[in-house]
Amino acid sequence: MTLVMVKRTERELGTRDRMVAGAADLVRMHGVHAAGIRQVVAHADAPRGSVQHHFPGGKDQLIAEAVAWAGRHTEEALRKADPGELIPRVCGYWRKSLQDTDFLAGCTVFAAAVDGSDPVRAAIVTAVAGWREALVAKLSGVPEPNRLATVILTAVEGAILLARAQRSVAPLDDVEAELSFLLAARTTRPA
Amino acid sequence: MTLVMVKRTERELGTRDRMVAGAADLVRMHGVHAAGIRQVVAHADAPRGSVQHHFPGGKDQLIAEAVAWAGRHTEEALRKADPGELIPRVCGYWRKSLQDTDFLAGCTVFAAAVDGSDPVRAAIVTAVAGWREALVAKLSGVPEPNRLATVILTAVEGAILLARAQRSVAPLDDVEAELSFLLAARTTRPA
Repeated sequence: MTLVMVKRTERELGTRDRMVAGAADLVRMHGVHAAGIRQVVAHADAPRGSVQHHFPGGKDQLIAEAVAWAGRHTEEALRKADPGELIPRVCGYWRKSLQDTDFLAGCTVFAAAVDGSDPVRAAIVTAVAGWREALVAKLSGVPEPNRLATVILTAVEGAILLARAQRSVAPLDDVEAELSFLLAARTTRPA
Repeated sequence: MTLVMVKRTERELGTRDRMVAGAADLVRMHGVHAAGIRQVVAHADAPRGSVQHHFPGGKDQLIAEAVAWAGRHTEEALRKADPGELIPRVCGYWRKSLQDTDFLAGCTVFAAAVDGSDPVRAAIVTAVAGWREALVAKLSGVPEPNRLATVILTAVEGAILLARAQRSVAPLDDVEAELSFLLAARTTRPA
């Protein structure tokens, strides 16, 4: 999902959806703190009063919904992946996302973990539980699939942050190679 | 390092060092955006004018130095680890740090990756290069030690963020188990 693509898609969305997508975009580029009501309104080209109308819980609700929205987006991509190509597909998805945004945007869900409020934290936990479930569904026959799913998603998320700092997909290449080795080793040898 | 410990240690530091440590503390709790000059001055109990005196490069310089300071702190801990206990020591270090701060504070270096400026990004890259070197020094005999070091540090960093969201060290437990398995498998089988 490039920034340009987000902009294009936004035209087809209603004001509320545009604000959620816009907030997700701001969080993955600059963190929760930067995604203020004013910035989201400007980014989504929405009328000022629409925030209180659509999000009576204020910024917390808006950011929590943005995290949930981004989480579902990633979960759908995970569910579509071929089990035999799980690691390359996950890493490839993020490599493309980073390159498409010139390394300016990472993952909304984990970016929000740095300074999210309690409702935002709850949305993060729910999103990650969905990813873990999607990953576990692809890991049949592997012992401790939950544990392996956790290391896959944490390593990929750490690599996304490092890739942004380095302006390079090299961390994702490294993580892809090591996670592929780990998955193969886990498949042939019990925990 | 608990927040209480930081406060206590600060008394023995000069104003400049107190501001660097204070900025690191604010970033690992709330991100770069929240670590404004005013907040750092208040947190470090420093005179307002001291910021321009000590950090002519302004907030960017202050945050970059905070990242470098936190990076060195973690690198020292890595260098002290027994190679045979590398993974448990790294995970144990962060488990303790998270529990000591009631899951309010994560890693300054990776928290800064969400919304850091170019000087901050450069400090992150330098800090991580130091960690990677410290890890590689413990991974003798392992093929592709740089690659393994990258997956260790990215998985641990992702787990720190997830642990904060979940208010639980469970992600670090999972990552410790899988990384220990991976290291053992890498030691006995070539890449």
